[in-house]
Amino acid sequence: MDLASDKRRANVLGLGLIGGSIALGLRSSGWFITGSDTDAGVAARALELGVIDAVGLDPHSEITFVCAPVQHIVEAATMALSNTSGIVTDVGSVKSSVCSELADPRFVGGHPMAGSEQLGVEGARAEMFEGAVWVLTPVESTDPDAHRVVRTVVRSLGADVVELSPERHDGLVAVVSHVPHLTAAALMSIAAQRSDEHAALLRLAAGGFRDMTRIAAGTPTIWPAICSENRTAIVEVVDQVVSELERLRDFILADDRNGLLASLETAQEARRNLPSSAVQPEGLAEARIPILDRPGAIAEVSTLAAELGVNIFDLEIAHSSEGDRGVLILVIDRDGTEPLRQGLDQLGYRISVTALS
Amino acid sequence: MDLASDKRRANVLGLGLIGGSIALGLRSSGWFITGSDTDAGVAARALELGVIDAVGLDPHSEITFVCAPVQHIVEAATMALSNTSGIVTDVGSVKSSVCSELADPRFVGGHPMAGSEQLGVEGARAEMFEGAVWVLTPVESTDPDAHRVVRTVVRSLGADVVELSPERHDGLVAVVSHVPHLTAAALMSIAAQRSDEHAALLRLAAGGFRDMTRIAAGTPTIWPAICSENRTAIVEVVDQVVSELERLRDFILADDRNGLLASLETAQEARRNLPSSAVQPEGLAEARIPILDRPGAIAEVSTLAAELGVNIFDLEIAHSSEGDRGVLILVIDRDGTEPLRQGLDQLGYRISVTALS
Repeated sequence: MDLASDKRRANVLGLGLIGGSIALGLRSSGWFITGSDTDAGVAARALELGVIDAVGLDPHSEITFVCAPVQHIVEAATMALSNTSGIVTDVGSVKSSVCSELADPRFVGGHPMAGSEQLGVEGARAEMFEGAVWVLTPVESTDPDAHRVVRTVVRSLGADVVELSPERHDGLVAVVSHVPHLTAAALMSIAAQRSDEHAALLRLAAGGFRDMTRIAAGTPTIWPAICSENRTAIVEVVDQVVSELERLRDFILADDRNGLLASLETAQEARRNLPSSAVQPEGLAEARIPILDRPGAIAEVSTLAAELGVNIFDLEIAHSSEGDRGVLILVIDRDGTEPLRQGLDQLGYRISVTALS
Repeated sequence: MDLASDKRRANVLGLGLIGGSIALGLRSSGWFITGSDTDAGVAARALELGVIDAVGLDPHSEITFVCAPVQHIVEAATMALSNTSGIVTDVGSVKSSVCSELADPRFVGGHPMAGSEQLGVEGARAEMFEGAVWVLTPVESTDPDAHRVVRTVVRSLGADVVELSPERHDGLVAVVSHVPHLTAAALMSIAAQRSDEHAALLRLAAGGFRDMTRIAAGTPTIWPAICSENRTAIVEVVDQVVSELERLRDFILADDRNGLLASLETAQEARRNLPSSAVQPEGLAEARIPILDRPGAIAEVSTLAAELGVNIFDLEIAHSSEGDRGVLILVIDRDGTEPLRQGLDQLGYRISVTALS
């Protein structure tokens, strides 16, 4: 423990992708990290990989990150509050229940909006949270100093902190994460139910459908606990989606084309206002490049960008509703747009550029 | 017209992206193409761009492609049947109503599942349909010879022909295209309705939500006519999605975690069985590469593939439900997997490969 004497100290409980990345990120700025996992093999592996400095629970750590599945957070955080003198924070995707059950001055609820792919500690990366949104949900019982410390530590990992009440956080993630997942599963189930038509269906399922159902391929085991913890908000949003679908259906049944068009235009405008990147858009531009022959085009465009030294901050492919071909959308430095335009022109691509303000 | 005397001749009515690409594709294999558009400026531009050989309607063309918006197909096809002696086919995304109203031996319904991005004739490309699925919907009244000719011509454009009854086609596109579009719009509208929370919502909306709502950014004007023409199938599928969402909601309300899990597992399995590419998977493999820092990674991986001569047939990014970072999925030649694995290993990426059979 001598080695740790001059270092800031943190515990990480739960060494999956998120916990491992927090540990690595803090270690890379000089912290001494003690970690544990319900699977002792995972903790041993984390030590071997240099993700943590020691296995166990350090009672003198100034902060403990609880990175357990949502259904185990209250138990693990209560244990940490009892056995350490420091601040305790968590990374669960539902906050209301946890924050009301853990009404301790030393507890600060948190939720990094970063990859929850089930890659485990092997996928952990120190830079995981750079540019990611990290929600903190301090409540009345929270010690303002504890909140400030968590905020500073989280920002030192490169994250962008957003403060929300636990209830508002839960309502928002129901809209942007939980209910979309259920909806993707519902669409995919409808397709699967038509099993006699499955072969033909699969051949018609193009880019748009693949985009919409992709998240349904993720691990289902995490969802029952999330849906249970965030029941109120999820049920409310599911009912809203159902009402909205029924409203669109009624326009169609009544052949009310103007009503349908107005609704779709509202959605279109909202979607166009959705930023194409979590990156702060200062000095950036969005370049749209129609790519009819997609696979070769992505390699060609990104290779060109690399050769020209144009940094691609984000990339997405806007599929059309039908067919595979679409538009490649790049978020790049505004300074890079002219060289890229000239280079693409020579390769026969058309490009349209919008500055992001 | 002397120039055309030794060439096969086709008409293309409607010179948008699809019509223009059909014209270019046929011209590139030696056809003489006469084209028209309700917008005379578009027809003139198509002539100028070399997309068509002449403006007008050639009464002696062996085939006429009707590439008008769905609400104008019957009128345009009827005109073509009256004024030409050849076969008439269309490219509309709804088939039952058109095929029953056009019960003529010389009419063959069709629907290429290829980009419907509103790029216009400027975006037309001869290779647009290479590898795309092109549905044909011959009915009892259709002359088998007319069907065979359309089939051969469409295949000469590189498309993969699938025959379906008009009703089955309409039911399938309702599932894989029309209702997903309405659902994306519904999700986006729910998000937009929470306008007081909009700023915070936007910052939390990560890759999964962006993927699910992306098609809602497409031009809404085409949808009222499509929904009107395909009303029966769309209403049926919307009702199925609503029922499925209500079923999931009821599991959540009853805290029936096993019921919820079973439903999500069914969806997961179905999604995993959805091919990641319309490309025939013979000799191909799917490579999955976790990319936590996405933008740089895509350029790096695709540049490496280009350097190694590994052809990327398809590429998608599997976002996690939360956060931007995910897994890059490439469809490549099976022979390319080992060189790519070695190259990626040196760059510090992990790759897992599944053969597509």
